[in-house]
Amino acid sequence: MPRQELQYPKQPYSTVKRLNDRANYELETIHRLINESRLVSVSFNDPDSPFPAVLPMIGVMGSFDRPSADVGDVLDLYLHGYVSSRIMNLTRRTTSSPSQDSEAAPQGGSLPLTIQTSTITGLVLALTPNHHSYNYTSATLFGHASLVTSPDEKLYAMALITNQIIPSRWEKTRVPPTPAEMSSTSILRVKISAGSAKLHSGGPSDDRFDLDNQDLTQRVWTGVVPVYTTLGEPVPGHYNQVEQVPDYLGDFVTEQNETTRKFSEHAAREEVRRKA
Amino acid sequence: MPRQELQYPKQPYSTVKRLNDRANYELETIHRLINESRLVSVSFNDPDSPFPAVLPMIGVMGSFDRPSADVGDVLDLYLHGYVSSRIMNLTRRTTSSPSQDSEAAPQGGSLPLTIQTSTITGLVLALTPNHHSYNYTSATLFGHASLVTSPDEKLYAMALITNQIIPSRWEKTRVPPTPAEMSSTSILRVKISAGSAKLHSGGPSDDRFDLDNQDLTQRVWTGVVPVYTTLGEPVPGHYNQVEQVPDYLGDFVTEQNETTRKFSEHAAREEVRRKA
Repeated sequence: MPRQELQYPKQPYSTVKRLNDRANYELETIHRLINESRLVSVSFNDPDSPFPAVLPMIGVMGSFDRPSADVGDVLDLYLHGYVSSRIMNLTRRTTSSPSQDSEAAPQGGSLPLTIQTSTITGLVLALTPNHHSYNYTSATLFGHASLVTSPDEKLYAMALITNQIIPSRWEKTRVPPTPAEMSSTSILRVKISAGSAKLHSGGPSDDRFDLDNQDLTQRVWTGVVPVYTTLGEPVPGHYNQVEQVPDYLGDFVTEQNETTRKFSEHAAREEVRRKA
Repeated sequence: MPRQELQYPKQPYSTVKRLNDRANYELETIHRLINESRLVSVSFNDPDSPFPAVLPMIGVMGSFDRPSADVGDVLDLYLHGYVSSRIMNLTRRTTSSPSQDSEAAPQGGSLPLTIQTSTITGLVLALTPNHHSYNYTSATLFGHASLVTSPDEKLYAMALITNQIIPSRWEKTRVPPTPAEMSSTSILRVKISAGSAKLHSGGPSDDRFDLDNQDLTQRVWTGVVPVYTTLGEPVPGHYNQVEQVPDYLGDFVTEQNETTRKFSEHAAREEVRRKA
């Protein structure tokens, strides 16, 4: 796959201010991080509450108009999950009052959403608590959501989301969805206005006066505990009738575990600046 | 530890509407989920942006006034991370305009925050994509943040947070922090107004007409792929001088891995309703 160099524009609300040497605005890096996270946290302002609403949802980048688009291309974010009546009402409300939508990107859309995902890849243990930190990857997208109404686009997004969880699972199951299943499923399309990623990795660092403290350095273990997600041995459901775990599933579990473990162990040793 | 039965009040903004049989308002369950998550996502409204601001932070429940309080007691949430100038300014702003703070709980506080954490414990694979789901644990807290100014309370929270990442790590490192370290660290105390948890586990379920489809049930593997976080072999930093990984660290890694794996494997088989 050709390396993409497209970058999201830095907006006042999207520019990383703290430790900005860790920031990355490349579409490819940000989209990969979103696709790799099985859940994203979706936040939106609720005028009826002093608190922002936050919903965990499944998010995958895609392009219905250009399904062959590369992960580093300009893409929409498709969100699947419980599309609450609040989201629906707010989508209608924001659409009917353009003033609330002043920051809307040219592509339009209605309800402003902030989509965030963060993954810890290591516990960084230093000589003193203040230098303890995490290795992590983090991505944030800002965009405007609309409900997908076209059945074709909804089907496209449903397959995309299912296969993001387990590759080719869509084709292996009973499809297409029934009309009832289609109508019971809501998909949001988010037109992205901006985004950023932050990656941190490597070993601990400490202040000179602590490093020069022989008693301290000989007493305190310093380093990184790699952290990664593991997929366990598949557990058959009570009505499963397929004896063998199919290869597409077993191989995926094996490869995923290998990839996540290696990334975190690598990150424990050196700086990783991009997600590729 | 005595089982606590305290529950958070159901507020309009905190009541679980969707699949509310999975909801849980017990302080103990919610506080445990927050304490177990190494990162929480912190959302707040930014009047200068159409998008809510979302920051990943470290959050731990505690009580400076009653350090011996049980996890199921009324507790504050201490947040550590980059306390952005936005949070600071907004904290000042909201304090100076009580109207914005109408929903403030009796305990007071200033900036309204929504704190969310979700953890996937299994991929639930059914006969048809629409019945695919995740096993998960999820907790949300709503509260008002203020900056911790008392050095004693700051020290209390710093130790609490460090030891939440690695038990007794605080005592094993160079403490107390220097005046410079103290002033460079910001801690937020969140007075909690409400909260909720959601837990889902167990195997797949499908519709009768799919279950009766022999060709389908004999073709599609159904069950759960357990998902859990693994702590890897500790990797010594380049200036580490302690040959052996200390027991308090090695044992923690072993026990953590055992606990998270067992929870997810258990959740793949049966319904888990509380976090204890």
